[in-house]
Amino acid sequence: MTKPAIGFVGLGAMGFGMATHLVHEGYPVHGYDVFPASIDRFQAAGGIGAASLRASAEDKSIYVCMVASAPQVQSVLFGDEGIVQSLPKSATLILMSTIPATTAQSLAQTIHTTRPDILVVDAPVSGGALRAAAGTLSIMAGGSPAALEAATPVLEALSAPRKLYLVPGGIGAGSNMKMVHQVLAAIHILGASEAHGLAARLGLDAARTAERIVSGEAWTWMHENRSPRILGGEGVWSPGVSAVTIILKDAGIITTSAREHHFPTPLCATAEQIYLSALLQGDGAKDDAALVRQYFAGPVAEVDASALSAEEQEERTQLVLDLMAAVNLVAAAEATSFARFLGVDLAQFYELVSDAAGGSKVFVSRGLEMIEGRVGEKAPAGAETVDALAQRLERVAQRARDLHCPLHLGNAALGVLLMAKRAGLGGSSSTSVVGLYEGGGSRGKL
Amino acid sequence: MTKPAIGFVGLGAMGFGMATHLVHEGYPVHGYDVFPASIDRFQAAGGIGAASLRASAEDKSIYVCMVASAPQVQSVLFGDEGIVQSLPKSATLILMSTIPATTAQSLAQTIHTTRPDILVVDAPVSGGALRAAAGTLSIMAGGSPAALEAATPVLEALSAPRKLYLVPGGIGAGSNMKMVHQVLAAIHILGASEAHGLAARLGLDAARTAERIVSGEAWTWMHENRSPRILGGEGVWSPGVSAVTIILKDAGIITTSAREHHFPTPLCATAEQIYLSALLQGDGAKDDAALVRQYFAGPVAEVDASALSAEEQEERTQLVLDLMAAVNLVAAAEATSFARFLGVDLAQFYELVSDAAGGSKVFVSRGLEMIEGRVGEKAPAGAETVDALAQRLERVAQRARDLHCPLHLGNAALGVLLMAKRAGLGGSSSTSVVGLYEGGGSRGKL
Repeated sequence: MTKPAIGFVGLGAMGFGMATHLVHEGYPVHGYDVFPASIDRFQAAGGIGAASLRASAEDKSIYVCMVASAPQVQSVLFGDEGIVQSLPKSATLILMSTIPATTAQSLAQTIHTTRPDILVVDAPVSGGALRAAAGTLSIMAGGSPAALEAATPVLEALSAPRKLYLVPGGIGAGSNMKMVHQVLAAIHILGASEAHGLAARLGLDAARTAERIVSGEAWTWMHENRSPRILGGEGVWSPGVSAVTIILKDAGIITTSAREHHFPTPLCATAEQIYLSALLQGDGAKDDAALVRQYFAGPVAEVDASALSAEEQEERTQLVLDLMAAVNLVAAAEATSFARFLGVDLAQFYELVSDAAGGSKVFVSRGLEMIEGRVGEKAPAGAETVDALAQRLERVAQRARDLHCPLHLGNAALGVLLMAKRAGLGGSSSTSVVGLYEGGGSRGKL
Repeated sequence: MTKPAIGFVGLGAMGFGMATHLVHEGYPVHGYDVFPASIDRFQAAGGIGAASLRASAEDKSIYVCMVASAPQVQSVLFGDEGIVQSLPKSATLILMSTIPATTAQSLAQTIHTTRPDILVVDAPVSGGALRAAAGTLSIMAGGSPAALEAATPVLEALSAPRKLYLVPGGIGAGSNMKMVHQVLAAIHILGASEAHGLAARLGLDAARTAERIVSGEAWTWMHENRSPRILGGEGVWSPGVSAVTIILKDAGIITTSAREHHFPTPLCATAEQIYLSALLQGDGAKDDAALVRQYFAGPVAEVDASALSAEEQEERTQLVLDLMAAVNLVAAAEATSFARFLGVDLAQFYELVSDAAGGSKVFVSRGLEMIEGRVGEKAPAGAETVDALAQRLERVAQRARDLHCPLHLGNAALGVLLMAKRAGLGGSSSTSVVGLYEGGGSRGKL
């Protein structure tokens, strides 16, 4: 069967990989970008260069929009040459940029005032440029059943097996799902740098400490993924793989949405402030591994731990593991409670996060307890209490302080745990901290 | 009547001023310091140079210790030449360094194991080098009635009228009182830089904005005191009047104590992390006015607001005022609840703070409501709610985010306000946020 022609706008790092992958899958893809060089490059890779934005849309029953930001989407859709007026009848329009759910909803509404025939799908992606080019992204798609059905072949081509999530809830549901996933990603990206920075201040070997983290309960996808670049130092940060400004943009979507809903996201907001600090210091365009400089001035790979005894190394490594255990737990509570608040399908949220860039061992085990409501008295027997976790983290915070090491996430997580204690949750399982976000407490819902 | 000879150790910026003031008051003061140049300078100013630490203590019925840190106090008291063994019978020993209350208590205990006759007073000060030299410090003194009586003439000589606070509770009570005062000082110092940084990002004139702040409800003692140095820029920061490392030390005493008590101090902990960031960037020895660089790279005094209309200036100035209104309120809640938790005399705390470096207009009015329990339903009619204050702050946070301006305290305060909302306090008066710290909530103590 001949595959339909696809229009595609936005041939940047992600879009180029996605568009060329669709070419390899046998689709005739008409690509457009504001930078003519990107169109040339796309043609060289087998694509069809569109002479104009309008030309990229005319007669294309399927259209993919993968530009970088909400204002760019607005301009692509409704600008002078805007594609909404040019798409053929009953075309399927797939919006794959990361934008706020409310923006996706209002864009769809505006499209439908003049073009009710267009099927709109809200389908942000996760996975980075390499997986974009390999067609193995995670995709979170929302829209009407008809729109989702029409878009599915293209979305399946772009996603890994079982990584296409059809999210219930219509337009905006995909963006919301991506957003609550990014709560974890945003915290864990800074968490990787915070753990490496503290380890360096403690005089620990960076590679060995990372190995301990990724092989045990403190594992996060981000720590495993970022550690090589954090160890790589300045030499691998410019250009990097994923710039500070990328996660800053996602964090901005989260905190903006949280403010609109009056929902607290203290860890994510803390991470965002530190991204902004890095931006102010000129590190915005660097790989987000450069965030380690917010904790340690020199190259962490050069820290020499040979003067420490095995016992000292073990004791200090445990502090780093304790830091991550606490930060990852509060992060899981923050993301889960925000997802629940937004009405996100929690079973799907759990499935997605567990096997994506926001994943952590703590989320897989303790996050599931939070999602299933197995907290407080319903927690598994022998579960660590809020008090016990807070005390582990207090020891880390004190040690960091003694070393003059900032511990932005650690202290924010400690604030949340101690507020939970003040709310009467100290003796409950540590997963009960989710109750603080959800208005619970000793006298509350839990 | 001849005044008694006083032994004095620690002739640094504060100690030198205090010791020379005592000389001017007619006391024979025998001063010692580890730096011989400081002793020479003290002699040139009319003091008596002590040949050794031991000599500074021998035959002195009153002894003042004003060294910089707890380890130094330890060494002065119990080191090889330690003064405890050299002081005459029934001498009065006044410990004026800023140290943790628990340290003051354990030092006194150790002194009394070998020298039960020595009267120990725990009397940290507030007010800076100029007021030290003028004898107009604020002093917070704790100890036995006999010890306080013996120390009072010297403490009165060093303090301004009505600024000598005899704090009930024995040894450590003075240090605790100073510490809870410093919660406000530590937050407001960063607050002055945050407000100036945001104003600069908004394109506002620094001097005019500061004038609006200090003349209205947003006033803090720190904003008024620090603004000239923040406007002064790099040229006045090295050497400055009060280094980042000074407030960092006080913040460390607060957060260390808070961790020991498992009490949350999220705003103060946030401020401390940013002090540590400044230290990491090499600004530790600079005046704490240099903290404005954590928000704005250039000189804030050079921001030119002339392109803004009067309406634009007013709207933007209001954002800065809203930031301070919210941060100052949560700061008041944090300090007041911690003071109450520690059993600090709240009436005295209120009197002291209202007229000292930690003071703010918000504390004077709303802090009093918190202290007197006039929160929630007992709040004054028409009081702003937690929800309304959070919404004002959300607008500020969004605007700062749009400008890529970090807003460390603003976001930390917003997290607290939104957690209070989640706890069911959203519709209560904004002072009810104190309930979050105190384990209250809609179903709680308030």
